Amino acid sequence: MPMMSLAELQRRIDAGNLSADAAIAQSLEAIGAHDKTIGAFVCRNEAVRAANAGPLRGIAVGIKDIIDTADFPTQMGSKIYSGWQPRADAPAVMLLKQAGASIVGKTTTTAFASVDPTATLNPRNHGHTPGGSSSGSAAAVAAGMIPLALGTQTGGSVIRPASFCGVAAIKPSFRLLPTVGVKCYSWTLDTVGLFAAGVQDLARGLSALTNRSELLPAAAIETPRIGVVTQDFAGAPEGAGGEALRIATVAAERAGASGSIRSCRNSRRRRRWRGNTGRITTRCRRCCAPGSTKAPAQRLLLTTRRAGSRTGPGVH
Amino acid sequence: MPMMSLAELQRRIDAGNLSADAAIAQSLEAIGAHDKTIGAFVCRNEAVRAANAGPLRGIAVGIKDIIDTADFPTQMGSKIYSGWQPRADAPAVMLLKQAGASIVGKTTTTAFASVDPTATLNPRNHGHTPGGSSSGSAAAVAAGMIPLALGTQTGGSVIRPASFCGVAAIKPSFRLLPTVGVKCYSWTLDTVGLFAAGVQDLARGLSALTNRSELLPAAAIETPRIGVVTQDFAGAPEGAGGEALRIATVAAERAGASGSIRSCRNSRRRRRWRGNTGRITTRCRRCCAPGSTKAPAQRLLLTTRRAGSRTGPGVH
Repeated sequence: MPMMSLAELQRRIDAGNLSADAAIAQSLEAIGAHDKTIGAFVCRNEAVRAANAGPLRGIAVGIKDIIDTADFPTQMGSKIYSGWQPRADAPAVMLLKQAGASIVGKTTTTAFASVDPTATLNPRNHGHTPGGSSSGSAAAVAAGMIPLALGTQTGGSVIRPASFCGVAAIKPSFRLLPTVGVKCYSWTLDTVGLFAAGVQDLARGLSALTNRSELLPAAAIETPRIGVVTQDFAGAPEGAGGEALRIATVAAERAGASGSIRSCRNSRRRRRWRGNTGRITTRCRRCCAPGSTKAPAQRLLLTTRRAGSRTGPGVH
Repeated sequence: MPMMSLAELQRRIDAGNLSADAAIAQSLEAIGAHDKTIGAFVCRNEAVRAANAGPLRGIAVGIKDIIDTADFPTQMGSKIYSGWQPRADAPAVMLLKQAGASIVGKTTTTAFASVDPTATLNPRNHGHTPGGSSSGSAAAVAAGMIPLALGTQTGGSVIRPASFCGVAAIKPSFRLLPTVGVKCYSWTLDTVGLFAAGVQDLARGLSALTNRSELLPAAAIETPRIGVVTQDFAGAPEGAGGEALRIATVAAERAGASGSIRSCRNSRRRRRWRGNTGRITTRCRRCCAPGSTKAPAQRLLLTTRRAGSRTGPGVH
């Protein structure tokens, strides 16, 4: 089951090769075929139609079930909110509708976006968890059921299930998308995020939602410089974590990036530093100290070789 | 109809001269007697009882009707939310209950805490508005129906109706009281505030709600220095506004304060200054400019003469 590309759907709809209603019907059909196994949706509307206008007409969207919807119950992944029907859409959902998207259903969430797992399967491997808390949104995109989904993140609840399910996701800057009507986990950290098949799809979705054309990638992407900072703030990583970083590094290099890892071995020669924000951290005295002229340690800088590389090194 | 002092009720309950249930019954009786005229309540619970423990046992509290309550509908002052029943109390209401308060009902609000007036009368003068948006909370305290009420303020929706109705109120620091479960007007500015008969009553209420004993006033209050800044950032005030300031100044002086107004007449000799926050303002070149050694202009500094003055210059 290949993923649905939002960008590709838009191109076909704009070219007149696909009607917006047919695009929605594709999603409904895919949901009908796969969700019985995957269990990404809490509830859905099989009679939903496409809008006549807007950049997201023909785009079927799933909404994480801690986000208020006027057309669907919002059950927070908890029996406490069983059957709970908000009176209004959360502003993030209103933005989707204004852009012409069709809301096809609510996606599973761990209870109150916390740690209790859902019953949703990981479409890449049914024996694995899809990750959480935005489990259903990540799984529904990964399973090729919908081209776009909303999730929320307080710590890592968007980027974690995206990485587990092998889909692209963005946790935008704080407050780029409104969090009103989202069940509060942390007033200051809660962030609405997006899931899609690839980076271009995400960019188009976020641009349509926010009405910001500058979020669309330019035709030729400037060569990005990617730094992977592994400074030892919180102790040494587990072996599997280090190995995952190595695999990601290889993937980034394969996609056109170059770089090298220089590890700092001076973990015993540390002193306390107060950073710009007033936060105190410990760093190696020799090469990681502010103002040091020695090479930054334990840091990997990658520079992509090919300008215009379609996706660059990323999750997808 | 004298106002009910929270501090006085607490003293009588603590001394065993008044039962907590009798204190609640007093409020229910006063509501029965006066609310038909004033119209401060949207709905109420006449069967409410006192809690057995907690610093606010025996204290009847009214809750502005944009704050979620599990025991009452929350109608936002709008027909759109007619009969709307939240599933949970807002955390600010939970804090009240944890402190032993009894929620007697929901108080009127302008629709969505915006500008449409309520039908509530000002208890001091039935021909005047009680002010808004927390109209019912201010009026219920002013009419002697309850000793404590919650309101909310985005711009001036607590301090305005308090001043119109002649009651004490506090708009606490941002985030001292949680705004989760309060209908959002502005994510960053919305603030839960308190209404009570006097400053001591407010302090006891806020201290009980937040479990912060440092909010209780000391027996002898240090002489406060009060500055009234009238610098001409937004043009000259209306005549009535200037007159109101003069009246407040006289009242403050009567309560023990001393001070003088020196007006800056150099409104045409201005230049732009960038303040500490990066915000650009215009100020008179001669005496208001940063670093100027001349006397600050258009500024009134009041210093109270009597230490331990019970209320000091204030609204109440």
